[in-house]
Amino acid sequence: MAKPSIVGVDWGSTNLRAFRFDAEGEIAEVRRAESGARTLRGAAFADVLETLISDWIDDQSRIVTCGMAGGREGWTEAPYANCPVDMHALAGSVIRAPAKFADVWIVPGAKSIRDDGRVEVMRGEETQILGGLENERAPAIVIAPGTHSKWARVENGRLVSFRTYMTGELFALLKAHSILGRTMDVSAPHDAAAFDLGVHRALEDKGLLNLIFSTRSEVLFEHLSPAAAPSYLSGVLLGAEVGEALDRTPFTRDTPIFLVGDPGLAGRYAQALAIAGHNQVQTLDGERAAARGLWRIALERGA
Amino acid sequence: MAKPSIVGVDWGSTNLRAFRFDAEGEIAEVRRAESGARTLRGAAFADVLETLISDWIDDQSRIVTCGMAGGREGWTEAPYANCPVDMHALAGSVIRAPAKFADVWIVPGAKSIRDDGRVEVMRGEETQILGGLENERAPAIVIAPGTHSKWARVENGRLVSFRTYMTGELFALLKAHSILGRTMDVSAPHDAAAFDLGVHRALEDKGLLNLIFSTRSEVLFEHLSPAAAPSYLSGVLLGAEVGEALDRTPFTRDTPIFLVGDPGLAGRYAQALAIAGHNQVQTLDGERAAARGLWRIALERGA
Repeated sequence: MAKPSIVGVDWGSTNLRAFRFDAEGEIAEVRRAESGARTLRGAAFADVLETLISDWIDDQSRIVTCGMAGGREGWTEAPYANCPVDMHALAGSVIRAPAKFADVWIVPGAKSIRDDGRVEVMRGEETQILGGLENERAPAIVIAPGTHSKWARVENGRLVSFRTYMTGELFALLKAHSILGRTMDVSAPHDAAAFDLGVHRALEDKGLLNLIFSTRSEVLFEHLSPAAAPSYLSGVLLGAEVGEALDRTPFTRDTPIFLVGDPGLAGRYAQALAIAGHNQVQTLDGERAAARGLWRIALERGA
Repeated sequence: MAKPSIVGVDWGSTNLRAFRFDAEGEIAEVRRAESGARTLRGAAFADVLETLISDWIDDQSRIVTCGMAGGREGWTEAPYANCPVDMHALAGSVIRAPAKFADVWIVPGAKSIRDDGRVEVMRGEETQILGGLENERAPAIVIAPGTHSKWARVENGRLVSFRTYMTGELFALLKAHSILGRTMDVSAPHDAAAFDLGVHRALEDKGLLNLIFSTRSEVLFEHLSPAAAPSYLSGVLLGAEVGEALDRTPFTRDTPIFLVGDPGLAGRYAQALAIAGHNQVQTLDGERAAARGLWRIALERGA
């Protein structure tokens, strides 16, 4: 009998990516769709996925899905696994999703409870982070930049704890809906000098409510062009995140830092970290890391 | 010959208030309109004002206007006066606005240049702050809370310097457009306990990008109700502003703090300041303070 074919799906709020694996777990093919979990309810998840990958599937196929498909308003709720958590624990907590066309498992998100009782959660990044760092045994910091950026501590293949920073969503909101957007050319290309200026100021100043507003006054007084303003604001926000997170993350100079995610955005974080004095930052491709994590969970589960 | 009648106008971005003064400078009548400066161009300013107060006007009338009517896209641009600035300097820098129905003067905004060259600006608050504190000679801190909250140093009738915090606009954006708004009952009444919790956390934590996101997770894990969430977020943002501003404002325990503005919002700031250890805070009615400042500028100008 042939081995069952394995498919991995990273289902985010605004889009999804499906990976067809070969027998060794390498990515044979990737397909993307815009049907994010935020826009779907109930059986629509199965319909979207079947339409996207029906030609990949046979009787023996196994589909492993991480991300927002497991949220409370997703396909099937997969309760959060408590940190510290490893691949084995994630694989042991998968939930079956209702689907007629294939055998679908949903990976739980992860939950990190702080000393004061506040809870931090992620869905999808746990798979990406553990998938990206499966061979790293030493303590490390992993940053997954994005709409809700995550800073995680990882050690011995376990996700130990993490915090979330609302940086990406705030940047999008300020550009689209605030007074800052009105003195900005939001379609301008990245301006490295303006970005660096924003990072420097945020790391020195640490007063975000005042500093974000300078995006407007610096344009009004022609210290910045409207085209440079989005990069300045991006620098202010990433600099604030880096400053805030480094102050709160148990950390030594020797702790390696990994960035996992979109290469363009990871490059900006690497630059902000370099300005903060951290040059030994390694970047991992987020899509490959998520795929690797999904494959590993399928193996652990005994596909 | 009768004394000329004096009218004051505080013309904000989203609305305007007109004050008819009696011969002693007391407010005889107030009229309000929703025609904010943001929605008007050119001659529309004169049309709106004439419609609102034509029955107050005679040949001898003088109208003094502060706020966004003097902005670059307002009625007539009134360039910013440099800090330190007093009533006399403001009165000396008024600009005539084109109007056939009366003699209209526009008060300049104020500009505070920081050591690093960054520029802070206000339009309207300078009149309100100096009007509210005309009898205060000792050094004081004046806070004008709002969409773009101002913290000013005042001494000997002079506005010495100030900074702007984007708190109010950020609160409105996060409620209306962010993921936080989706787990919130935005129409709920003020929840004092949730507000205080947010202030405490912001003053202790000083990490805003992480802390604002807790508004969502605290609701998801039922530590906060959806009805309490807006007050919690308001507390987080006001606490962050108070912490940020107190750290940056030259200040001793004995320096009096004045709040000038809407009494409801000023009450929340007073509460946040009390949690930060400042109980000796005096609140001035913002409308009365603006009216007083407009009257004083008219007198200085020799109405």
